[in-house]
Order: sequence, then C-alpha cells, then structure tokens
Amino acid sequence: MAKEKELSGELEWRMNMPDGTSETLERENGLVPRVCMGLQGLISRFISKIWRFLEKAWNLGVAEPKKVIHCLKVGLALSFVSVFYYMRPLYEGVGGNAMWAVMTVVVVYEYTMGAMLSKCINRISGTFLAGSLGIGVHWVASQSGEKFEPVILGVSVFLLASAATFSRFIPSIKARFDYGAMIFILTFSLVSVSGYRVGELFELAQTRFSTIAIGTTICILTSMLFWPVWAGTELHLLITRNTEKLADSLDGCIAEYFSDNRDVDKSNDDSSKILQGYKCALNSKGTEESLANFARWEPTHGRFYFRHPWKQYLKIGAAMRGCACCVESLSSCINSEIKAPDFLKKNFSDVCMKLSSQCSVVLKELAVTMMTMTRSSKIDFSVGEMNFAAQELQNALKSLPNLLILPLPLENNERGEPSTVNLVEILPLATAISLLIEIAARIERIADEVNELAILAEFSPASDEKSQKSQSNTDKIDDATTKTLQKV
Amino acid sequence: MAKEKELSGELEWRMNMPDGTSETLERENGLVPRVCMGLQGLISRFISKIWRFLEKAWNLGVAEPKKVIHCLKVGLALSFVSVFYYMRPLYEGVGGNAMWAVMTVVVVYEYTMGAMLSKCINRISGTFLAGSLGIGVHWVASQSGEKFEPVILGVSVFLLASAATFSRFIPSIKARFDYGAMIFILTFSLVSVSGYRVGELFELAQTRFSTIAIGTTICILTSMLFWPVWAGTELHLLITRNTEKLADSLDGCIAEYFSDNRDVDKSNDDSSKILQGYKCALNSKGTEESLANFARWEPTHGRFYFRHPWKQYLKIGAAMRGCACCVESLSSCINSEIKAPDFLKKNFSDVCMKLSSQCSVVLKELAVTMMTMTRSSKIDFSVGEMNFAAQELQNALKSLPNLLILPLPLENNERGEPSTVNLVEILPLATAISLLIEIAARIERIADEVNELAILAEFSPASDEKSQKSQSNTDKIDDATTKTLQKV
Repeated sequence: MAKEKELSGELEWRMNMPDGTSETLERENGLVPRVCMGLQGLISRFISKIWRFLEKAWNLGVAEPKKVIHCLKVGLALSFVSVFYYMRPLYEGVGGNAMWAVMTVVVVYEYTMGAMLSKCINRISGTFLAGSLGIGVHWVASQSGEKFEPVILGVSVFLLASAATFSRFIPSIKARFDYGAMIFILTFSLVSVSGYRVGELFELAQTRFSTIAIGTTICILTSMLFWPVWAGTELHLLITRNTEKLADSLDGCIAEYFSDNRDVDKSNDDSSKILQGYKCALNSKGTEESLANFARWEPTHGRFYFRHPWKQYLKIGAAMRGCACCVESLSSCINSEIKAPDFLKKNFSDVCMKLSSQCSVVLKELAVTMMTMTRSSKIDFSVGEMNFAAQELQNALKSLPNLLILPLPLENNERGEPSTVNLVEILPLATAISLLIEIAARIERIADEVNELAILAEFSPASDEKSQKSQSNTDKIDDATTKTLQKV
Repeated sequence: MAKEKELSGELEWRMNMPDGTSETLERENGLVPRVCMGLQGLISRFISKIWRFLEKAWNLGVAEPKKVIHCLKVGLALSFVSVFYYMRPLYEGVGGNAMWAVMTVVVVYEYTMGAMLSKCINRISGTFLAGSLGIGVHWVASQSGEKFEPVILGVSVFLLASAATFSRFIPSIKARFDYGAMIFILTFSLVSVSGYRVGELFELAQTRFSTIAIGTTICILTSMLFWPVWAGTELHLLITRNTEKLADSLDGCIAEYFSDNRDVDKSNDDSSKILQGYKCALNSKGTEESLANFARWEPTHGRFYFRHPWKQYLKIGAAMRGCACCVESLSSCINSEIKAPDFLKKNFSDVCMKLSSQCSVVLKELAVTMMTMTRSSKIDFSVGEMNFAAQELQNALKSLPNLLILPLPLENNERGEPSTVNLVEILPLATAISLLIEIAARIERIADEVNELAILAEFSPASDEKSQKSQSNTDKIDDATTKTLQKV
C-alpha cells in the first residue's frame, strides 16, 4: 500500500516511534496551509511584479539620466520652498499663504524649460487678470446692495467660467493659454466667492501674488542653473535624429530587398530595429507639436534665439512623415510573397541601390546641416546627384520592354528564347522602384523645407564656401605674383 | 508754383476769403494727427482681429454644441459649489477649507467623463495616500527630537518628491496615474511641511478630504446628469467615422484616377475634402490613445460595459493607419505627371474600380458593424468578394505581357503593328494597382481586428443569421409537412 502511495507520486511524512511502530503524518488539506500557499504565491508574484517594475524604472533612468536629474531638481526646489516655512521672518512676511508657493512649485515644475516658463507666465498673468477682475466685480456687487450681491457674484462666476472654459476649446488659445484660462477660472471663483466673507481682498491678493512669484522664481532658478532641458533643443534633436533614422531605414529596406542573404539579415534584431526606424518619424507628430509650442516661450539659449522659427521644424516633420509613409508602403512591397525574377532584380539592383544610397546621403547631409546649423555646400550637389540617380533609374526602366520581348544575353538564359516575364511577377519590383522615385521627390521637399529653415534661422554659411573664397583670394594673389614674376 | 505742388501729387486745402484772396491751409504734419491715424488703424485692426476670433469661436460652437454645453456645465458646477460659501451651516462645517472644493471643481472638470473620473479618483487616492504618509512621517519626525525634526521632514520631502516625479516618466504610470502622482507630491509637501506649524493635522486632513469629496461629487453629478460626454463613445465614433472617411477617400482616389473628367473633379472643394479623408485616420493616433486611456475609467454606459475592450480600438486604429499610409502613397501616384496610355487604363479601369468599390464596401460594412455593435452576416461574403476582385485584377495583370507585344484589336490602333509600351509609362498605373492590392490585404487585416473586437465585446449576432435560422427551421417544418402529406 505504501508502494501504491509512492507510485501515486504523493509526498508523505512518516514518523518512526521509539517503540518500533511508525505513524504516517496525514497531509493537512485544511484551510490554513492552503491560505499560506496562496499567500506565498501572491506575495512572490507581487514581489516579481515590483521587481520587474523597478528594473524597468532603472533602465529608463540609465537610458535617460536627464530625467533623473529633473526629479532631483524637483526635490531640491521643494526643499528650497520649505525653507519659507522654517524661517520665521519669511513665514510671517507671507502669512499662511506660503502654501501657495509650495503649490506653485509642484504644479509648475515641468520637464522642459519652455513648458515651465509657459506655465509660470500663464499662472502669473491668469492670477493677475482674474484677481483684478474679481476685485472689480466684487466692488460692483458690494455697491448694489446686500440683496443683489450674491446674485451678481453668482452670475458673473457662471458667465466668466463658461466663457473661459469655452476659450480652452479654441485651438490657438489651447496651444498657448490653456493653463492660464484654468488659473483664471480658479482665481476668479476664489476671489469673487471668498471675498464675500473675507473682506481684506487686496491684502490677500498681494500676498498670494508674492508667494506665486516666489514659487516661480525658485522653479526657474533651480531649473535653469542645473542642467536645463530646453524644449527647443529637444525638438531640434528629435527632428535631426528622425532624419537619420529615416535615412538608415530606407537604406536598410532597399539593401534587404536586393541582397541575397535576406533571411540572415531578418534574424538580426538590430537590423530589424533599423528597418523600423521610419516609424519614429511617422509617430512623432504629437511630440513635435507640443515641443514647438513650448519652445516659443523659451528665451535665447545656446545657438537658438528667442523667436527661432520653430514652426518650420513642424513643416520639416510633416514632410518627413510624407516620406516615411512611402517607406512604410515600400516595406510592404519588400515583404511581398511574389518574388521578382532574379535577372530583373540584378538588372535594377545597382541603380536602385545607388538611388537609395544617394537618398540617404541627402538625408544625412540634411541632418548634419540641422545639427551643426551650418549651411552645407554639398547639399545642392547631393540633391542633384540624387535626381541624377533617379533619372538613371528611369532610363534603366525604359530599357525594360526590350528585356521582356527580346532574347536576353544573360548567363542563366543561354537558350536564346524570348524570356517572357509576367507583369504580376515584376509588380512588387515596379512598385518598389516607383515608390523609390517618389521617395526621392519627397526627400527633395524635405531639403526645401530645411533650406527654408536655414534662411529663416540664418544658419551660418558653409565652411567650405569660406575656404573656397579664401582659396580664390589666394589664387588671385598667386596669379598676381606669377604675373609680376613673369614681368620681371 | 501751385501747379508744381499739384504735380507733386499732394492734396492741399485752399480757403477762399470773402475779400477775393485765397489762403492755403498747410497740412499739419504734427504728432497729434499721425498718432490719431495710427491709433485708428491699430484699433480697427484689433477690432477685426477680435471679430475674426469671435467668428471662429461661434463656428466652433455651432459645429460642436456639446462643447458649449460642457462650458455651461462648468459654470453650473461652480455656482453649485459657491453655495457652500453662502450657506452658513455648510460653510462652518468645513471651515475655511471650502476653497478646496472650488479648486477641485475647477481642476477636475474635464470634457469627457473618463478624464474627469480618472482625475477624481487620482485626486482622492493621491490625497489620501500622501496625507496618511505625511502624517506618519510627521509623527516619526516629532518623536526624534527638535533637532532632527526639520532634517527628517526635509529629507523625506526631497526623496518622495523625487521618486514620485520619476514615476511620472514611466509610461504605464504616466498613462493612468500622472495626475495622482502630482497630487501626491503636492499633498505630501503641504502636510509634512505645514504640520511643523499647524499641529492639528488630523482635523485639517479630514476637512480637506471632505471638501475634495464634495467637489468631486458635484463634478460627477452635474457632468453625469446633463448630457454626459463619454470618452468611450467618442472613441467609438472616432474610429467608425475614420473607417467611413477612409472608404470614401479610397473610392474617390481610384475614381478620380480612372475617370476622364479629372480636372472638373479637382476643382470641386467637397470632393478634394473627401479625397483627403484618409489623413484623419493617419493623424488621430494621439487622440485615440488618450480617449482609450480615459475610457477605461468609465463605468457601464449605453451599450458599453465597464472593461469594454478599448485597447482593441487602438489596434483597429493602427491597422487603419497602415491602410491610410498606402492610400497616401496611392494619391501621389494619381497626381503623377506620367500618364499611362489610355487603352491600358481602360483595360484596368473596370477591375480596379470594382476592387476599390469592394474595398469601400468592406470598410463601410465594418463601420456599420462597429456602429450598430452587431455582427454582420455579410462581412465574410464581402471580404471574399474583395479578395475575388483582387484575384481578378491579378488575372487581368497576367494578360498584360500579351497586350504589350501583340497587335491590339483597339479602335485607335488599326494598323496591326505591335503596340510597344514603355514600362516608364505604365509605372504609375502598375504602382496604383499594386498599392490597391496591398490596400485590400490591409483592409482584411482591419476586418480581422474588427472581428476580434466583435468577439471580445460580444457583439450581438447578425439579425440575418437569426432570420436565416428561423427560416431554415420553417423550411424543415415545411419539408416534414410535405413528407407527411405525401405519405398520406
């Protein structure tokens, strides 16, 4: 029987008594061990979940140390503002309103300088506007007798809150003054409603205003002094990086299509990441728009002036999305099940690879132009080369009907028979070629937008131009010297 | 001399005196009239600007009356909350903290129910968590002597604020608890810092908590009772509308390409708007994501249950963007300068039009399926038809090489010579066809996602299926009756 039990695969505890008998300890199937087991499982799952969460957070911190620094800055600003509570003279200066300084710091402290400045300015102007309007309305109400006072105040709150809320739906207001409108509603309601009780509105407004000013000052100072993150710089980097990714992804797509060892490439994780690079350009519309919105609040910083043409970056982004759309269609051709005949592929391989590499040269040149903010002397030449490569591809296409109907002088087709190729077979290839030509056209549009940016932002002229100029000057001098020497 | 003056083109005022002499009035080139003119211009420009702004706002209000209602609701909620200030018993119940109720209403009142609920829950749980933690830290600090108290409080504020700020960068937290983390930082700082002074922390926490509860209750009640706007419904409508727009835009693109009166169509504003419809699907990623994020906070409403598979809508949206990308590439083919020969175009016109109309039939069927939340009995059939049309198009393509090399029995080519067509000429056509086939494949993917949604959300079965079943039942009965009759 013991054997049977062993066979059944169950574990059992046997206690050997001193008198030679042995007693089997029955497995407790009661509530307590089950609950213990359940709890243990729950706790271990919970711990592993927490562990994975911490791991993710750690990776995020390692990948973007700027964000960690931002967090420490928030802690620092809050510690600074706490000083107001601990230092008696300061605390008595602003009264119980020191709370507003803490609140300002927490609410206003954003990751980028632009976002923070826009919130600060919105908060201050919203508070000021609503405060003065609230005091005005309050004065009017107090003049009109006790009976009408609450009515006037209530109606004014209703009307102004509704109007300000509606203004938040208007795109131009939403983009710039959304937070200000909210603060306006908040302050107006608080002032016109609380004024009914407190009476000393002016003093209240003054202390509140000064605490908000203190809060914003602390925010701006801590944020600016220690590794500031500028929305403009972030936008600039984002667009530049996306341009590079688009170039790599286009290059990778075409290379994968025409290379022979496609399966080897596909298995590689890195290369598939590069191939998917165009998706970054495709999906970053929202980020670009919010960064551009914040960037316009930022003062001159680094190489960017106040009123830098941030909107032009959005245009470049839109042009890139158009291009990325074509790359996305192209990638579907490449994954198509219908394979073009090898001899045709070989025929176009070189011209296509040349065009795609020219495209990516142009894109990378544009990325460098934006990154260094220096006009490139080579860009016109590169675009010309790209167009020339596109023309070459079209010329190669023009020779295709002959390919279809005439005997082909190819190694693997030595019988001299007409090699009839069905158009279905070459459809993906034709589409890829057509899309490639379209991509080249769209890249030229990106180049135009970047050129527009270079004009608007007054990029410095290319160093090559300078050296060319100085070169021609020295040439002239040399000529003159030679002539003089000859005369002598 | 007067003539000279006239010739110089200047206007002059001449006053004829009663004594026959005339006196020229010198034009006043002084400061005052210039300033007046400038001011007038400025004011008129300002007024016209304001006017245009109001016009825009009016149009927005007319186009989306729901938004106007929202604004009135905000006004109403604020008026409600003001009652707390005016009614003595209530005011004395919560003390000076009535301010927090006003603040809660202003900050929490969002356009969609989901956004508001998420903010309410975040605000309440953030306040509760930070409040209890703050009181705990405060107790620990007060036990450790006067010297260490500020140090412990300061360090805890620094650490917790930094950690909470960092958590806001983690995508999963950001999507759901961003606002809660901010409220956590705010409340914790206020409690742990102000506790140093106030002492009666528990009472403060209690009244603050109750005012926040009052504020959120007012928000939720006013928002739910009068025309609530549900994020889920909005997402549902957005996806459905985008599906329809995509269908119309695809249909329009292909029709424009193959129709003869292209220029007439182009001049029409409405039709170009329809053609651009795919851009809505392409650009609504951000809106979709935020709506899906809010929708998951919403309780059962209308036909949507709590835990409705909102994420599946995002997948449908992603599939639609893939399709819209192809339509965007297609539209560039259509605007290509290279025109395919007419006889080829005519050859493919019917099959292409058929495929595109089948595609749009499928998309519209999917839109109806989603809109009515009823499984369509026709959808499998429609997808089959679409695939059949795609196959027909491929068959038509297979006949193309013959077209290229054989004499064509066409009206305008009666010499019987081989009609050699250059591939460059047919490239846009080939690309359009290839993209159309790809679009059909991607629409099938959308159909799969919608089917997945139908399974997850348990869409009701098609009414046709029901009627078919009852039909087959009655058929059986009829058969049986006939057999019985025959036997008799």
